[in-house]
Amino acid sequence: MAGSIFGKQFSISTWGESHGKGLGVVIDGCPAGLPLEEGDIQAYLDRRKPGQSRYTTSRKEGDEAEILSGVFEGKTTGTPISILVRNTSQRSQDYSEIASCYRPGHADYTYDCKYGFRDYRGGGRSSGRETIGRVAAGAVAAKILKELGITICTYTRSIGPVEIDDSRFDREEIGKNAFSMPDAEAAEKAAAYTKQCMEEQNSVGGVIECVVTGMPAGAGDPCFEKLDANLAKAILSIGAVKGFEIGDGFRAARARGTENNDAFVNRGNGIEKETNHAGGVLGGISDGSDLVFRAAIKPTPSVAAVQHTVSKTGENRELSIHGRHDPVIVPRAVVVVEAMTALTLVDALFAGMSAKMDNVKKIWGR
Amino acid sequence: MAGSIFGKQFSISTWGESHGKGLGVVIDGCPAGLPLEEGDIQAYLDRRKPGQSRYTTSRKEGDEAEILSGVFEGKTTGTPISILVRNTSQRSQDYSEIASCYRPGHADYTYDCKYGFRDYRGGGRSSGRETIGRVAAGAVAAKILKELGITICTYTRSIGPVEIDDSRFDREEIGKNAFSMPDAEAAEKAAAYTKQCMEEQNSVGGVIECVVTGMPAGAGDPCFEKLDANLAKAILSIGAVKGFEIGDGFRAARARGTENNDAFVNRGNGIEKETNHAGGVLGGISDGSDLVFRAAIKPTPSVAAVQHTVSKTGENRELSIHGRHDPVIVPRAVVVVEAMTALTLVDALFAGMSAKMDNVKKIWGR
Amino acid sequence: MAGSIFGKQFSISTWGESHGKGLGVVIDGCPAGLPLEEGDIQAYLDRRKPGQSRYTTSRKEGDEAEILSGVFEGKTTGTPISILVRNTSQRSQDYSEIASCYRPGHADYTYDCKYGFRDYRGGGRSSGRETIGRVAAGAVAAKILKELGITICTYTRSIGPVEIDDSRFDREEIGKNAFSMPDAEAAEKAAAYTKQCMEEQNSVGGVIECVVTGMPAGAGDPCFEKLDANLAKAILSIGAVKGFEIGDGFRAARARGTENNDAFVNRGNGIEKETNHAGGVLGGISDGSDLVFRAAIKPTPSVAAVQHTVSKTGENRELSIHGRHDPVIVPRAVVVVEAMTALTLVDALFAGMSAKMDNVKKIWGR
Amino acid sequence: MAGSIFGKQFSISTWGESHGKGLGVVIDGCPAGLPLEEGDIQAYLDRRKPGQSRYTTSRKEGDEAEILSGVFEGKTTGTPISILVRNTSQRSQDYSEIASCYRPGHADYTYDCKYGFRDYRGGGRSSGRETIGRVAAGAVAAKILKELGITICTYTRSIGPVEIDDSRFDREEIGKNAFSMPDAEAAEKAAAYTKQCMEEQNSVGGVIECVVTGMPAGAGDPCFEKLDANLAKAILSIGAVKGFEIGDGFRAARARGTENNDAFVNRGNGIEKETNHAGGVLGGISDGSDLVFRAAIKPTPSVAAVQHTVSKTGENRELSIHGRHDPVIVPRAVVVVEAMTALTLVDALFAGMSAKMDNVKKIWGR
Repeated sequence: MAGSIFGKQFSISTWGESHGKGLGVVIDGCPAGLPLEEGDIQAYLDRRKPGQSRYTTSRKEGDEAEILSGVFEGKTTGTPISILVRNTSQRSQDYSEIASCYRPGHADYTYDCKYGFRDYRGGGRSSGRETIGRVAAGAVAAKILKELGITICTYTRSIGPVEIDDSRFDREEIGKNAFSMPDAEAAEKAAAYTKQCMEEQNSVGGVIECVVTGMPAGAGDPCFEKLDANLAKAILSIGAVKGFEIGDGFRAARARGTENNDAFVNRGNGIEKETNHAGGVLGGISDGSDLVFRAAIKPTPSVAAVQHTVSKTGENRELSIHGRHDPVIVPRAVVVVEAMTALTLVDALFAGMSAKMDNVKKIWGR
Repeated sequence: MAGSIFGKQFSISTWGESHGKGLGVVIDGCPAGLPLEEGDIQAYLDRRKPGQSRYTTSRKEGDEAEILSGVFEGKTTGTPISILVRNTSQRSQDYSEIASCYRPGHADYTYDCKYGFRDYRGGGRSSGRETIGRVAAGAVAAKILKELGITICTYTRSIGPVEIDDSRFDREEIGKNAFSMPDAEAAEKAAAYTKQCMEEQNSVGGVIECVVTGMPAGAGDPCFEKLDANLAKAILSIGAVKGFEIGDGFRAARARGTENNDAFVNRGNGIEKETNHAGGVLGGISDGSDLVFRAAIKPTPSVAAVQHTVSKTGENRELSIHGRHDPVIVPRAVVVVEAMTALTLVDALFAGMSAKMDNVKKIWGR
Repeated sequence: MAGSIFGKQFSISTWGESHGKGLGVVIDGCPAGLPLEEGDIQAYLDRRKPGQSRYTTSRKEGDEAEILSGVFEGKTTGTPISILVRNTSQRSQDYSEIASCYRPGHADYTYDCKYGFRDYRGGGRSSGRETIGRVAAGAVAAKILKELGITICTYTRSIGPVEIDDSRFDREEIGKNAFSMPDAEAAEKAAAYTKQCMEEQNSVGGVIECVVTGMPAGAGDPCFEKLDANLAKAILSIGAVKGFEIGDGFRAARARGTENNDAFVNRGNGIEKETNHAGGVLGGISDGSDLVFRAAIKPTPSVAAVQHTVSKTGENRELSIHGRHDPVIVPRAVVVVEAMTALTLVDALFAGMSAKMDNVKKIWGR
Repeated sequence: MAGSIFGKQFSISTWGESHGKGLGVVIDGCPAGLPLEEGDIQAYLDRRKPGQSRYTTSRKEGDEAEILSGVFEGKTTGTPISILVRNTSQRSQDYSEIASCYRPGHADYTYDCKYGFRDYRGGGRSSGRETIGRVAAGAVAAKILKELGITICTYTRSIGPVEIDDSRFDREEIGKNAFSMPDAEAAEKAAAYTKQCMEEQNSVGGVIECVVTGMPAGAGDPCFEKLDANLAKAILSIGAVKGFEIGDGFRAARARGTENNDAFVNRGNGIEKETNHAGGVLGGISDGSDLVFRAAIKPTPSVAAVQHTVSKTGENRELSIHGRHDPVIVPRAVVVVEAMTALTLVDALFAGMSAKMDNVKKIWGR
């Protein structure tokens, strides 16, 4: 089946491989009348660019976005928006060994099982470069959210064992350190820890946290299209993610009902929750509080340390992966989590527009 | 948008409210030729039945499944299978207070935000009884998996702070205790803990673990339809779930690359992994190992202890929820997790049939 | 794949066979706040009921609709509406011969090819009774349209060679004759023609025409989700339909550009078309004129006259189909065409709500 | 909603406007292992190229296809195939008048109604150039069909009142005349008729017929996903199509049951039909006969003759459309019909792979 299409009302179709001619996305279902220019997309793509610190790959990826359709006189027309990013900096020779041998922690083996063969250059479609289409589309989704007063703040919560201290939370700090942490002190410790792992030819994982502010109540559909269920799918669809939790998440499983329930209160400005253990959803529908969720990112599977593996023909081998790899992909994944979140929210908001007869009449009733 | 349809090839459409005339499901896309009878479905429904221990609600729900279509002479015909469960034991009077007041931790408030009003009897569609349709359909999916040699083992990993000890893991024990735990000693501790919470008019959460054996390599689609992404959505779509993790999950975020990677090895029987930190997926595609994942279940939001809340008209209120509620829903949710897993796997297996031209020719090439 | 689900925003999932326990539909995506009762659905079902004239089967089908979910205190809740019609008047013995022999013009042979076996009682899922779910759901869709000022008028345009004369068009007449024709004189001729065919143990086809009034401009999506494309699919999905045309249809293929184009004019009340050769769509999007389209219905394949056929085991046979069959299904198919039209329009209207940023802000912008 | 995505298993997402930077398509769900090169796609695109006779526009459109992803070492990889065609020959100045004025028979007015504004250059997304993405994707689908022994023959059945004579049918002739007619004599008459209409500053429509040979029995899904229903949608989604009929189509509505039914017969080589009034489908499922259907194409709406219309601001105007327009689009639409047919058939064949448990076991059962 088709696996590279995401979203029902606001659908994106991504394409491209690490070492092919380019990567991109077609967005279908973007409303007409949204101001959009290539700069909006470039700003997002630049956040996932490598080579910005010593803790990410030294590859230089220009990643310039070109809008090919769907925008006229500075506004979206309502028809598909095609965005293209040409590949420019691929060194195919780095990857020759992968052709005949399965890298542990990568998708080499499963692609061969599924398709019978694979584009082995740089992981092909399973490369992290696949996220370029997601991020470009996410930039458009984020612009829609902004028009509705919804903003997303995404950052690194932990790198290996180093976690931020909420009492030091400083939003301004996120863009200032190499780890996208809102806590300068934690970022320094994360740098020290990562440096040590690099020296040991090893790699590092971490946790990304996402907070959505300004979300209206009533988005998300009961049963299977719950807002948190769709967020979970969106986030787990990112290559290295191994876990998702919303609100108190796994901690809720240890709490008692009275500790985990959020009391409602009216302080004079309407109904709100006193706390937010739920993370902004009740019964899968947004409750007007901030959405708060986390994603667990595994350590980069490409390590220079020697690993055991097997060749395509079944012989046991030793493998040491060299080349330009990120020792930690968490900082670069922050914008990917943000993009997938924006895409999911826009799709849910559009889907929910026909929830009430009043809404239908408002739009079509004349 | 429609939110009660799940699956693309093997699609289910569930319906029904806690206090309506009944609940059920229509399964569309079940292959022809599968032996099926009402007993297959009843066996699953019985596992989610309440009243089986002192730790679940004392409501008696008969929940008898009737197959209305799609089966002829003991086999599925390939056309839709409609399954109906009539409601029999509803006491509407228990729920009169909810009509005007929002229960903390429930979907009362968000349904009102979304739809403008709601069926307040027993939570309506947001009730746990909504899972009846899922479980009935899951029973059919599980039969398909069984024909392919795939089995699912689901159990409670923890109740509040009480976790099973893997060294005592005993599959036979799961069906013997009130908590569906594969560890008799842990089950006893869980009982003691739950009893204490009940005395305090409080409730308990926990973690459910699921292990899928016999899964072939190559299922799941790259990019957005990753097998783990779809499992995450399926599991998070269950009312009380707040987190999902596969393989090492959140622990992977703290590990180093060499610790988290699973080496490949050929011991003479083909390629396998030495360990299974990945939980059976690489790049979103099954790798032939067991699938292993966990779901975090929040404590039952209905507690007898006094809580603060707000009425529909915005007045602050105190609320104490009486009636027949589960102090812990984890044991009854085990079969729901299993059902959603079966549904997700069948859908992924069907979707993957056209992944290779060889497969297409095998079926249609004559 | 699943084939019994129709619509993306307003989705219906139908089920049931001719001689099973019943038939029905689950509607998912109906907005909350629509007044709905069983009588609304019954009124539609009664229009497809047989036994109402000598030109339809003498079978008595009670076909009483029961709403099982999704309605509370007389209004839809926004959650799935399940509608059940129990089968009551099936005589399985009538159909014993079909079990081993393929009826010409029926789906017996193709079901066996596709599924390996079939429910042979009365055609199973390929029976005309399958339309019960469609008609029940169509009644709900029609109520939504009515709230938006949109009405559908469907009638028989021709029976065999007998066509209505537009100069005698009388809407009131449609419900008064056995052929649902808006022309009493034509209806009389149709009766004479059908009677003659019945005496020859033969059957009759015809053309159904549908006119939608009050349709707002701007519904339907460019490219693949054109309004007329979706209408064509909806109408061709009805068992006996062999053709669809909108506006001038096949006549347009013989016309010149200046004859077929509809000039725009402003007579002081805004933009309108001087003529309606297009049938109410331009580029697949409604233009504010009436939608006008036709469906070609083949003659009932069940005839008492002797036909050549082949048995399941490949032997040549002669077959004469007795039992209670409609000599002409056109009059009973009128409400099915109307139902499929209503379902298609509601889905298109809901899908189009997010076409403009202005609309999105109107609903979510607060 | 998204309207530019077609197909569920074999999904295509098309994009691009007449005067934008280019047009293209992303194909998601193409099986791995299909030999594919740019020449395969170019051959199809060349068939829709203008400027090949005096009866099509004199615009020169290079329309060179570039495959950007999804193919490795000459074979499809199973991941998305992105195909790009850059626009090269647009003269925006030709279209300045359209910006403020609605062309009769075009989508200018409805786009403005739907989206609030439009890309008026050459019709934007509603231009016939939109079909480039369809044709490119159709070329890939046709290659898949060829591997399964299925071939499609599409040709012009009539131009205005000039129809082919079946007794002169010559498949070789189709590619030899400017009208893609399988009858040289009819093609000559069509040329004379078209020439005359051109002199009168007018345009011409026609009927396209399509015959699919080698189709296996059992494709298409009962109820809403009938093979003919999906073909109808696919064909009606092409801009200028106003009608669709399969087999005897509208003629069937005038026939009697015994005339329209196709008898089954076994002449020693298995079950076949003596005639093919049905056009290759029974109950929406292919019956192993040739699929035969027709599409009615309206005359080109762009004519030089003076027409009445209205400006954007509501003033009545006279309009004479100059520029390089096809006096008849039927010949160029032939390959578009063929492409949409190929796409529909591949999608149906893939969807049907899980119809039987035997098939599922054959692929996954190990």
